[in-house]
Amino acid sequence: MDAKEFREFGKAAIDFVADYLENIRDNEVLPSVEPGYLLDLLPNQMPEQGESWKTVLSDIDRVIKPGITHWQSPQMHAYYPTSTSYPSIVGEMLASGFGIIGFSWICSPACTELEVVVMDWLAKFLKLPEHFLHASEGPGGGVIQGSASEAVLVAVLAAREQAVVSYRESHPELSESEVRGRLVAYSSDQSNSCIEKAGVLAAMPIRLLPAGEDLVLRGETLKKAIEEDVASGRIPVICIATLGTTGTCAYDDIETLSTVCEEFKVWLHVDAAYAGGAFALEECSDLRKGLDRVDSLNFNLHKFMLVNFDCSAMWLRDANKVVDSFNVDRIYLKHKHEGQSQIPDFRHWQIPLGRRFRALKVWITFRTLGAEGLRNHVRKHIELAKQFEELVTKDSRFELVAPRALGLVCFRPKGDNEITAQLLHRLMERKKIYMVKAEHAGRQFLRFVVCGMDSKPSDIEFAWTEIESQLTALLTEQSLAARKTGNVADLTQHFKIHLNDHEKSQ
Amino acid sequence: MDAKEFREFGKAAIDFVADYLENIRDNEVLPSVEPGYLLDLLPNQMPEQGESWKTVLSDIDRVIKPGITHWQSPQMHAYYPTSTSYPSIVGEMLASGFGIIGFSWICSPACTELEVVVMDWLAKFLKLPEHFLHASEGPGGGVIQGSASEAVLVAVLAAREQAVVSYRESHPELSESEVRGRLVAYSSDQSNSCIEKAGVLAAMPIRLLPAGEDLVLRGETLKKAIEEDVASGRIPVICIATLGTTGTCAYDDIETLSTVCEEFKVWLHVDAAYAGGAFALEECSDLRKGLDRVDSLNFNLHKFMLVNFDCSAMWLRDANKVVDSFNVDRIYLKHKHEGQSQIPDFRHWQIPLGRRFRALKVWITFRTLGAEGLRNHVRKHIELAKQFEELVTKDSRFELVAPRALGLVCFRPKGDNEITAQLLHRLMERKKIYMVKAEHAGRQFLRFVVCGMDSKPSDIEFAWTEIESQLTALLTEQSLAARKTGNVADLTQHFKIHLNDHEKSQ
Repeated sequence: MDAKEFREFGKAAIDFVADYLENIRDNEVLPSVEPGYLLDLLPNQMPEQGESWKTVLSDIDRVIKPGITHWQSPQMHAYYPTSTSYPSIVGEMLASGFGIIGFSWICSPACTELEVVVMDWLAKFLKLPEHFLHASEGPGGGVIQGSASEAVLVAVLAAREQAVVSYRESHPELSESEVRGRLVAYSSDQSNSCIEKAGVLAAMPIRLLPAGEDLVLRGETLKKAIEEDVASGRIPVICIATLGTTGTCAYDDIETLSTVCEEFKVWLHVDAAYAGGAFALEECSDLRKGLDRVDSLNFNLHKFMLVNFDCSAMWLRDANKVVDSFNVDRIYLKHKHEGQSQIPDFRHWQIPLGRRFRALKVWITFRTLGAEGLRNHVRKHIELAKQFEELVTKDSRFELVAPRALGLVCFRPKGDNEITAQLLHRLMERKKIYMVKAEHAGRQFLRFVVCGMDSKPSDIEFAWTEIESQLTALLTEQSLAARKTGNVADLTQHFKIHLNDHEKSQ
Repeated sequence: MDAKEFREFGKAAIDFVADYLENIRDNEVLPSVEPGYLLDLLPNQMPEQGESWKTVLSDIDRVIKPGITHWQSPQMHAYYPTSTSYPSIVGEMLASGFGIIGFSWICSPACTELEVVVMDWLAKFLKLPEHFLHASEGPGGGVIQGSASEAVLVAVLAAREQAVVSYRESHPELSESEVRGRLVAYSSDQSNSCIEKAGVLAAMPIRLLPAGEDLVLRGETLKKAIEEDVASGRIPVICIATLGTTGTCAYDDIETLSTVCEEFKVWLHVDAAYAGGAFALEECSDLRKGLDRVDSLNFNLHKFMLVNFDCSAMWLRDANKVVDSFNVDRIYLKHKHEGQSQIPDFRHWQIPLGRRFRALKVWITFRTLGAEGLRNHVRKHIELAKQFEELVTKDSRFELVAPRALGLVCFRPKGDNEITAQLLHRLMERKKIYMVKAEHAGRQFLRFVVCGMDSKPSDIEFAWTEIESQLTALLTEQSLAARKTGNVADLTQHFKIHLNDHEKSQ
């Protein structure tokens, strides 16, 4: 393919994306394909001769699009949002056009330096403590990781290595493997699976401590666990707290956790993958309490900042602790400015050696949308979730499971788990909206998350109509089925009040 | 930004990339900026209001481009190539347009299934053993990782967990931490820094065994090390061999290594990040010897397959060994097709939870270029390196340090390391071409790698003229300086023969 063809293909692809995103509501959010659909459609080896881009682009429409789950659709309400935006899409394309790998400053000064710039911009925008800025005096700063999983793993591994070094200094009688065998880390039983995985990868047990009834992990629980462990000769290393848990968007109590971590010299990492976006809002300033006392922090720009995946911001209070743990250089990586300036060598801040020019899409997105645009986006998600929350609370067949938090509403039809499961099953079969369920203390519930690139109040109404009408249909069917089998009494006991209540609320 | 503006911005950006790549020879390959250049040019906080995309695009030209090291330039000869190509750039853009995260099948069936398809296409194209295909009966298959570092780390961590489980079964008297404390891994002292880093991250020592004089690691060296370790109670876990080392593109002896690994039940991983591209060529079939006996293998599509970074293929003979080690699921990740089909849940094959739709750019690139186009690209790099090798050998002031291997020529000006260092310094100051140096057995040398999206014989001639003319200038200056200080005898002893030889060869 030459440059001329690229211009044609590229522009046709731009139109394809614009058409796709403009008309995304025309698609059912969930695809209607069965496992293996694509394996059946495509040849089992690559073509010997190159094909025309026109054929390929039309195949994307024909065979790929039907297998897409439309994450940018306003009918996507599963997981947490994965953002993209028009400027970010262009930014990703420009970065792949430059085609550089920025593992050191000399490999493209703009790649490293723009990352320094946008991470400081973002830290200020989110009102993070000064010591997380590259521009601050100290050894702190921000870096773009691929995902929250990687950010958490970096914190866990760096904390582990720091603990080994410092414990061996104070306990020279112990061998390195004896020290490693005693390490232990902490998180909440509400934390994301990536935190448990980080423990597996780091070969360090992560105790998933019980969150309170409000699903919040507090200092007293952590303190009790640490004291038990210290008493039995274990070495506490790191606590990974969460602001915005995956299940219910609960906020761990960073202030009391940091008091405990300071007392026991335990690294405190905060996974704010989702909720971090709200740090920017004055009305959410409570969320930032205690952040001045944490060692590291991550927030996914691809969740709330309209930057497409992958783009996970991580800040370190003392980046040297990571660099010292991970640095394994070779002569071919040296260059004359190495270590001479304040410019970080980000390859030592992360797992892989290579790094994409992710800062470019961040910069383009921030500049074209502005701080105001970003704040408006977060506020819009919150407003739309409030709208949904009101609809839930007005319908007495449903109950909230936790207070709405940012763009997430956790709710369920009243009754046993089976009704929740059946309702979700119906909704998934109809493919009009996409939610997932979660569970706490034996109670299953549905998570309704505002996602999508451009959701509107009418989209929330659409989703609500779908949900409540499907519950009505489900309950009617069950009622009829029960009558047929003569099992009326049982079911009316279960549902009659709800149906009546619902009728009142209409 | 709305869709209309996106169409304008996107198409202008496509033209920007086409203009950039068509005219890439107009830029000096190395930028002329000093550390901190961009920090001085940009404001220290993001704009409050969004700005026009036209301003941003013109700033990319004004402030970003001057800080780019032009990896796609044919004057790039450092590291190994990082490819991009026109179809791959479009593919990356389309993937960010869909904006999906494919951590499970339901999250976009096309994302998982297209990866199965292209990994099998690639395995067949590279003539890999049948058991690495998803389409084969067994538990093998391929997955796209972000980088070779991540692929190596996945292999190291999975091998570690497998070893712990199996050793504890056979030695129930040992505690888990005792077992972990005895684990040991192996690689060559020529292997990439990411392998040493994987050892640090995995908290498992990786012994960097001495390669032979030809820089090849062989079975006998590994066997000796394993026997020593077993005798002292250690537990050998994994050997990471390399096909195409970073320094000289040496090929470890997979056949003898696999014999030893089979004997001691040690996982054998092959890092073929660069050389893997040559598996596709009949004339390089020797490179594939022994691959039917390895447990896992990685090859960077972003090095030789014209797919832009990041895109690192990894194949596993038994993927269950990774899945069993890494699986930490939650209810919100379950879906009704979970585990019911032959479709892999790739999130268990990798470090992070989230995954981009990287298969899209691979598929688009493979289809538009075809197998023939990909083979031609690898062959072209080999031919251009041969051309450079001939130029070096004809000029008796230079010597080859190792045989040319694929697109890499390792050479140096005859004499001590200081001449090599000074020559490289001059070349870097002039910024016309970019090479890095490496070192073996105390001898520094220059690595000339064919890179660039569209290099031609005239580019090789350009580079050679630059190199040899700068050596001439360097030697002339030194000779003059020596005369001035009356130190002629010393320098003529050192250089005179070379200068004379060079004159003969002109």
